Amino acid sequence: MNKFFALLVVISLSCGDISAQENKQLVRLAKLVIDPDQLHNYMAILKEEIEASVKQEPGVITLYAVSEKDNPTHITILEIYADSAAYQSHLQTPHFLKYKKGTQGMVRSLELVNATPLIPGMKIK
Amino acid sequence: MNKFFALLVVISLSCGDISAQENKQLVRLAKLVIDPDQLHNYMAILKEEIEASVKQEPGVITLYAVSEKDNPTHITILEIYADSAAYQSHLQTPHFLKYKKGTQGMVRSLELVNATPLIPGMKIK
Repeated sequence: MNKFFALLVVISLSCGDISAQENKQLVRLAKLVIDPDQLHNYMAILKEEIEASVKQEPGVITLYAVSEKDNPTHITILEIYADSAAYQSHLQTPHFLKYKKGTQGMVRSLELVNATPLIPGMKIK
Repeated sequence: MNKFFALLVVISLSCGDISAQENKQLVRLAKLVIDPDQLHNYMAILKEEIEASVKQEPGVITLYAVSEKDNPTHITILEIYADSAAYQSHLQTPHFLKYKKGTQGMVRSLELVNATPLIPGMKIK
């Protein structure tokens, strides 16, 4: 019975930790418009950057990028970082700096919109 | 050696299946503006609807909803369904119909933007 109780405590502490971690997350929508003549190259560079970020940085929780079917130059990225330190660290990585330098002539506009998730623990199945 | 080869075939077939499944996905950004006086109620109803959808419907891959920090009445939902049949089925569920009826006087505008994911298998860690 004591072991069962201890297990319950461990489970609830774990859940508490997960929830606290999620509350520190930095969630953002990046809204970009890309030069149509350079869209193909831009997408290739963005893909490489996202794959490196998600693989190498535990603090990059997701970078889910989509282009609009009717306006393919309009890109939205749902960005989730574990906390602001993880985001600051991300900005210094070689793959991010390579992306930023490589795409500076391709991005017509960039809007960074800080956001609050309705359900912070939401996943992609 | 034959067993090793068979294993490789199984692995690559599995990967093929996953990729084919992801290619059938329906990905969308829903962009909503909510009546400020009803925002609190709207968010509660949306939360209930999303939790029921993700829990009860295997074909609802995610419904990641955010509100903009500087414009909290501006809501964006990244919607991913397994395929168009899963989406059509979602529209007939009691929880979706309850949401639609319950929020019809709260939504000032709704834009449904079909999208193409850059990396279809992207997850949220």
